[in-house]
Amino acid sequence: MKIVEMQVTPIALGDPPLLNAAGLHAPYALRTVVELVTDNGLRGVAEVPGSSAFARAIEQAREVVIGADPLNWHALKGKVAAHCGTKSARIDDATPWNHGAYVQVLSALNVACLDLMGRAFNVTVAALLGGVLRERVPYSAYLFYKHEGAGGELGFGTDPRATGWAAARQAAALDPDGIVNQARAVVREFGFKSIKLKGGVFEPAQEIAAMKALREAFGPGVPLRIDPNARWSVETSIKAGRELEGVLEYLEDPTSGQEGMAAVRRALTTPLATNMCTTSFEDLPGSVRLGSEDIILTDHHFWGGLNAAMELAAHCRTFGRGVSMHSNNHGGISLAAMTHLGAAMPNLSFALDTHYPWQWEDVIVGGRLRIEDGCVALPKGPGLGVELDRAALARAHENFRRCGLKDRDDAFEMRKKIPGWKFQSMCW
Amino acid sequence: MKIVEMQVTPIALGDPPLLNAAGLHAPYALRTVVELVTDNGLRGVAEVPGSSAFARAIEQAREVVIGADPLNWHALKGKVAAHCGTKSARIDDATPWNHGAYVQVLSALNVACLDLMGRAFNVTVAALLGGVLRERVPYSAYLFYKHEGAGGELGFGTDPRATGWAAARQAAALDPDGIVNQARAVVREFGFKSIKLKGGVFEPAQEIAAMKALREAFGPGVPLRIDPNARWSVETSIKAGRELEGVLEYLEDPTSGQEGMAAVRRALTTPLATNMCTTSFEDLPGSVRLGSEDIILTDHHFWGGLNAAMELAAHCRTFGRGVSMHSNNHGGISLAAMTHLGAAMPNLSFALDTHYPWQWEDVIVGGRLRIEDGCVALPKGPGLGVELDRAALARAHENFRRCGLKDRDDAFEMRKKIPGWKFQSMCW
Repeated sequence: MKIVEMQVTPIALGDPPLLNAAGLHAPYALRTVVELVTDNGLRGVAEVPGSSAFARAIEQAREVVIGADPLNWHALKGKVAAHCGTKSARIDDATPWNHGAYVQVLSALNVACLDLMGRAFNVTVAALLGGVLRERVPYSAYLFYKHEGAGGELGFGTDPRATGWAAARQAAALDPDGIVNQARAVVREFGFKSIKLKGGVFEPAQEIAAMKALREAFGPGVPLRIDPNARWSVETSIKAGRELEGVLEYLEDPTSGQEGMAAVRRALTTPLATNMCTTSFEDLPGSVRLGSEDIILTDHHFWGGLNAAMELAAHCRTFGRGVSMHSNNHGGISLAAMTHLGAAMPNLSFALDTHYPWQWEDVIVGGRLRIEDGCVALPKGPGLGVELDRAALARAHENFRRCGLKDRDDAFEMRKKIPGWKFQSMCW
Repeated sequence: MKIVEMQVTPIALGDPPLLNAAGLHAPYALRTVVELVTDNGLRGVAEVPGSSAFARAIEQAREVVIGADPLNWHALKGKVAAHCGTKSARIDDATPWNHGAYVQVLSALNVACLDLMGRAFNVTVAALLGGVLRERVPYSAYLFYKHEGAGGELGFGTDPRATGWAAARQAAALDPDGIVNQARAVVREFGFKSIKLKGGVFEPAQEIAAMKALREAFGPGVPLRIDPNARWSVETSIKAGRELEGVLEYLEDPTSGQEGMAAVRRALTTPLATNMCTTSFEDLPGSVRLGSEDIILTDHHFWGGLNAAMELAAHCRTFGRGVSMHSNNHGGISLAAMTHLGAAMPNLSFALDTHYPWQWEDVIVGGRLRIEDGCVALPKGPGLGVELDRAALARAHENFRRCGLKDRDDAFEMRKKIPGWKFQSMCW
């Protein structure tokens, strides 16, 4: 089997004005769909974040992708490394939500090759990752402080006809009450059994109040997490963490760097999770030496693919780290890949993060994947178990073309609302 | 696909009177052939060491093996762990050449399942491990001090008609000259490009002399290794290691324990390798903390299978360890599995160990696998690419029955030659 064609389609999916430490989400989330076509007519697909760095890097890889055997991942990975370099790409273009184009190229190719293998052998990607341990993979609700607005074409506008979660999704949530209302709506719609709040937006006291309000509203049976995206100083993290002892399942990236995280971890009994201080295999020795976190949030888009995410899970077993999963905005192809990974990972300790409820569009046949009782059922069918809807893909690509965005820049979006806004570390 | 039958066949392969730190090889090496048969008529095979502990453990596992899906390794592994326990088996029955029956049960099942998967999908096991990086896998010559004798039915006797390597294989080698002669014969026959000596048999001065004689005979282009099987004290290891600086590619397990190895490692520039101080995933945190070795010798029989050996390789990449491979006496099924692993492992840093030239019998169709230019060509054909020769298997099983051995006991064999012999640490 040989890869004879690679199609790269940048798309934009409508996204509400969600707030985070880095600023504000634009009205569209950028993604890229990568398809590999083989000489025997099979087609494998993957989805990764959209960025101009990724667009350049995947084109640079094209020369070694065409002609490669999708059944020989080691060989293809080696060719990409030799052809495109590794470290330089990672260091040059990494941002807090983009760990470098090189690992994303590997991720896109790895997922599409696994999809091809699954189709060739008539088995699921989860089977190729070692076997299905759970048919239903648990996800966590993902709350955001947000401005009023639907996103997409409506931007900061709202659709008055919306009801249920669609209405709640466009509502503002700028204080603890707003967050609790958002949580009630998203839990009612999807049945989530655990809840995460994207923090690092307002002063820590308000975010602590929001977590306590969530605990009050949902009781101790619903695990809670908050992620201030490393916006807190070490001292603030310890003070806030102490306020939240007993309230949180885990505290995600309160502060930056492995040393800072390790200092916070020594001061708290609440477990610390990260997708910011330990984000690559190169970071694992430092993590082990310093003891920077209890839980590593894998993300196959940023660790180089699904096989690499399974390798990370093996490291976590060896070194006593739990595993959970990070998410950016994404569509159904990514959700399918995340679900295969979650189905196959022996040491999946926690419900996974997903932004999926914030989107309403998708590019797969049958429309959006369903989240029920907080779980996504492992897609059946060979490979990832999803098929591209060509008309929907064309519409999403047209959205990409029209929206004019090439790269995610949450600070730029934020400055449209608050001129001069810039990221600042928070002390409390 | 479901496993409907498991056949376990203990076999004995003739083995010459090789010396090592633990004593003397018996005239037969004990192995076990495990076959899994599926409801659609496929048959997967594996080979592991033979022992009464393994025989008990695999029978204990039978109840969860029958009915299991060979395409779902994670589920089968979980069932075996739940049914048979893990740690207890490892601790109870581990010896220097037997890291516990539990990991060997996992290894047998994992290899046989991969063989089944390969046959089901019509691909090689190496492809299922991530893809073939080399079609020819390099092995190292493996020299032994030995008494005169052919092993097998001849025991300490010799076959006067033998020529070439078959004649050299039955010759005594009890001093540096004997070792150099053995090396010349085995290199002439198989074209090995690197050479290992099993040490820990005679006083360190003689073994150092043997290594220097090998260097003199083969020149600096042939990498050399010695493995005293942890029989040297830390001080002896440092003294001997200093004598051999510049002579060795690596020094394998000069002394026992991660602390001891770390102390030796700090004193030498020669890299240290181990299959004795870091032998399981549980040992890796200590290895990282103490810096006990430079190279880990994987062995899929003792790390729980081929997927686990690939996970070990990933750990080695992350923590700056090289990878080479340990070997016990084995037949062609194990050699095929080792070769698939060697073909697929991205960070294979060294030629692999194999005892294979010391045997002359096998249980696979077509007779023994060939070693040419020091390499074994990756077997073609689906799965492991080897088929059982039923008549040869029956003969090897009959040998097992007749020879009366149930467990390897090199000290017991040694005491037949030297009454009262027992293992002692060596100081020099």
